[in-house]
Amino acid sequence: MLNHESQAADRVFHALADANRRAMIERLTSGPATVSELARLLGVTVAATVQHLQVLQASELVRSEKAGRVRTCQIDPSGLRRAEEWLRRRRTTWEHRLDRLGDVLGESHTDPGHPSKEHRS
Amino acid sequence: MLNHESQAADRVFHALADANRRAMIERLTSGPATVSELARLLGVTVAATVQHLQVLQASELVRSEKAGRVRTCQIDPSGLRRAEEWLRRRRTTWEHRLDRLGDVLGESHTDPGHPSKEHRS
Repeated sequence: MLNHESQAADRVFHALADANRRAMIERLTSGPATVSELARLLGVTVAATVQHLQVLQASELVRSEKAGRVRTCQIDPSGLRRAEEWLRRRRTTWEHRLDRLGDVLGESHTDPGHPSKEHRS
Repeated sequence: MLNHESQAADRVFHALADANRRAMIERLTSGPATVSELARLLGVTVAATVQHLQVLQASELVRSEKAGRVRTCQIDPSGLRRAEEWLRRRRTTWEHRLDRLGDVLGESHTDPGHPSKEHRS
């Protein structure tokens, strides 16, 4: 399981498992912000915010650029898409299985006396 | 941020940040399995599997039932939906912002000499 894709999934879900990091993402979905603005929003130090930012950047949820002394952060859609796609695939596999199960139960319910191999139309 | 919803999000993303727990979810999307079957699949002890199962149950990703000495696990859709919904909302907020930005840039591009307040049709 420890291939590249799995390690990327580890990182993105770990990054999302923290309320402060999720608050940073929520803020950035409505537009770029500087590290100082994010620190004020969270009520934590700039140093702590930079640490969270590094985790978010490593998982491709956020990217940042420095101009002079100011670092500005914005959403990187790659991480959000990766996490959402992982979840969507598992949910649809599960739902398709339930649908098939529903079909099978429907067949045996409408034709209880004949557990034959014939398929109903 | 530390309300009930945020704590639930912490738990579900933490649960997903582990390759073995994701492998358990993947297996269960195609149907129920016993703890022993999951342990064999992962190549870990039953005790370790039970610990992972507890994390998955606390985050409503998996549920289980014991019949005699056999505990059978299946997908609980609540956790998958919660995580997917969190991601989907942030992604759509971000995409809508990009769309609005695209509209504004389109306006200034086609009408560069008149940064007026008029809206284009």
